[in-house]
Amino acid sequence: MDERVHEHARTLVEWSARVEPGDDVVVEVGEGAHDLGVAVAAALGERDANMVTLYGSPEMERAHRLAHDGGFDADPEYELALYERADAALFLRGSRNATATADVPSERSQAYSRARQGIREARFGTDWVSTVHPTRAMAQAAGMSAEAYRDFVYDAVLRDWEALADEMARLKTVLDDGETVRLRKAGGPVETDLTMSIAGRTAVNSAASVAYDSHNLPSGEVFTAPYDTAGVVRFDVPLTLEGTRVRNVTLTFEGGEVVDWAAEQGEAALETVLTTDEGARRLGELGVGMNRSIDRFTDSILFDEKMGDTVHLAVGRAYDACLPEGEVGNESAVHVDLITDVSEDSSLTVDGEAVQRNGRFRWEE
Amino acid sequence: MDERVHEHARTLVEWSARVEPGDDVVVEVGEGAHDLGVAVAAALGERDANMVTLYGSPEMERAHRLAHDGGFDADPEYELALYERADAALFLRGSRNATATADVPSERSQAYSRARQGIREARFGTDWVSTVHPTRAMAQAAGMSAEAYRDFVYDAVLRDWEALADEMARLKTVLDDGETVRLRKAGGPVETDLTMSIAGRTAVNSAASVAYDSHNLPSGEVFTAPYDTAGVVRFDVPLTLEGTRVRNVTLTFEGGEVVDWAAEQGEAALETVLTTDEGARRLGELGVGMNRSIDRFTDSILFDEKMGDTVHLAVGRAYDACLPEGEVGNESAVHVDLITDVSEDSSLTVDGEAVQRNGRFRWEE
Repeated sequence: MDERVHEHARTLVEWSARVEPGDDVVVEVGEGAHDLGVAVAAALGERDANMVTLYGSPEMERAHRLAHDGGFDADPEYELALYERADAALFLRGSRNATATADVPSERSQAYSRARQGIREARFGTDWVSTVHPTRAMAQAAGMSAEAYRDFVYDAVLRDWEALADEMARLKTVLDDGETVRLRKAGGPVETDLTMSIAGRTAVNSAASVAYDSHNLPSGEVFTAPYDTAGVVRFDVPLTLEGTRVRNVTLTFEGGEVVDWAAEQGEAALETVLTTDEGARRLGELGVGMNRSIDRFTDSILFDEKMGDTVHLAVGRAYDACLPEGEVGNESAVHVDLITDVSEDSSLTVDGEAVQRNGRFRWEE
Repeated sequence: MDERVHEHARTLVEWSARVEPGDDVVVEVGEGAHDLGVAVAAALGERDANMVTLYGSPEMERAHRLAHDGGFDADPEYELALYERADAALFLRGSRNATATADVPSERSQAYSRARQGIREARFGTDWVSTVHPTRAMAQAAGMSAEAYRDFVYDAVLRDWEALADEMARLKTVLDDGETVRLRKAGGPVETDLTMSIAGRTAVNSAASVAYDSHNLPSGEVFTAPYDTAGVVRFDVPLTLEGTRVRNVTLTFEGGEVVDWAAEQGEAALETVLTTDEGARRLGELGVGMNRSIDRFTDSILFDEKMGDTVHLAVGRAYDACLPEGEVGNESAVHVDLITDVSEDSSLTVDGEAVQRNGRFRWEE
């Protein structure tokens, strides 16, 4: 086995999930993630942790959802009990076909998802971490060879996370202390000039560890929960929404809400998102990608939004970690990240002072 | 997908496990059993049952057990809670390497197993069924081509179970009403002549369904719990004990206990079993194989013991279903089945009347 698989597993178990002896750990192994599963099992054994292994199979899920009459039971107690009693949950994604569930009607998937709110909350109540084992199907989705894709994934995952966390802490301090953020980008067909309030909000230093309220490996972004958004923003990085390619989205905000939208491709899919509920037209997240080992778009949000020299905004739900204790942020059934490349003609300023210009941070000048 | 995979799945869900709408079902998918997993997911969906999918991976288990310090926690609560709340549990075996755990020291496996008694009991408290998806590794273990092995498995699994249950009911009646069984076989180097008491014991009509207290698919045997065994018996079907081939076992009983034993090959492995505890030297089971679709030995006890024209005896633990309510039968940490071919020179008599002679039952004469 590629030694990087073992390094990945140790990073996941030790740095990301902080597994301790005797911890009750759920490991969900994707159809194509067997090798990472074996390495994670060894890493959990080394920590003398307990292991329950789930099989994350989109093909089984598709077969079950399609054959079911659609009246899904709410939060089946046996599955709820498993997560409620678990200390950590590790999700090893790794699809063998990125479009394995393409023919499941979205109402069916949504009905299933709605019936499982309690299970989702129980899962998010554990020290959960989601990661990816590089498969041929994912390489294909990224338009890459299998070998180049493996290098890409391990470069992004096997970082000196402590050092990156220290660097990201600088941006977190700026955002924690700041009141107003302004994002500008010139040169495109639509000029971006957007202001947001972040006063009273706490930024998350997303350093790929539960110790930093960060649940993705790789990670490498700093994010907060903006409000009172005004202005225009264009997102020049494409994304895929429920199987539909969406390109060059433009959103216009007034008084914190999207009042106009457009997309050069996939506008109907964008409209579906924005009309889900009221919260879907407000921002839930402002994130700054700082993982420079991620140097290309691969059509996977786990990687794309952490790419260096990018900024992303999400419409929909805000993360609790960014909000004052007990305060409810933007609520919505959706959370969709939209990404803009800030490597050129761009600036991000906080309270009038530039913190990033053309992808370079103030402390890098 | 081979249509027989879907028939197998429907037989498992409908005939074997009797899954009802809303049932909470655990499905454990072996490393090589993905296709059966997909078909079972569809069959569970058709029944509007809930599904939690586990991954039964010997390679992950090996990695975890070997890396662990060996002081396994007793019955981790999260796993216990899952099984305690489940209605049914379906185990889809299907190895990709029948010797995947060959280098795990047996003390380590035993320590793990001992720590999980409560989980095992919770699992046996569900409507559980164990079955097998034919893999190349299993074909290899059976010395067969993949295609011939698939035919073999589906012939054994896709039976008219209702009809076989009716036939097996005849033998059950004989055994339920009987007091003394005598098994004889002439012609070998050691002559078999063994008597056992079965008075007061109840035979199980093992028709591959929880409705018959039967938890294997395929099944096709009638078994009871004998005692007061006396005489000599030779088992001419080979078996594998913890990776060791054992051939031509002879056991001599006096007053219900093994007082002498021999094997032409693997005697040390046999001795390890017989000296485990006191119960390991008494019989826990007398079984008569009645699945004539199983017409060859494949070195898998799931199939071998159900083969037509065979009788098997197990040293060790007896099944509760054979005992009067509240009575404890032979207790032991082991249950090892030993098989003898009764197609020739053989007879099985109950209270002096032949019920089977050279593999043919009384009602077939």
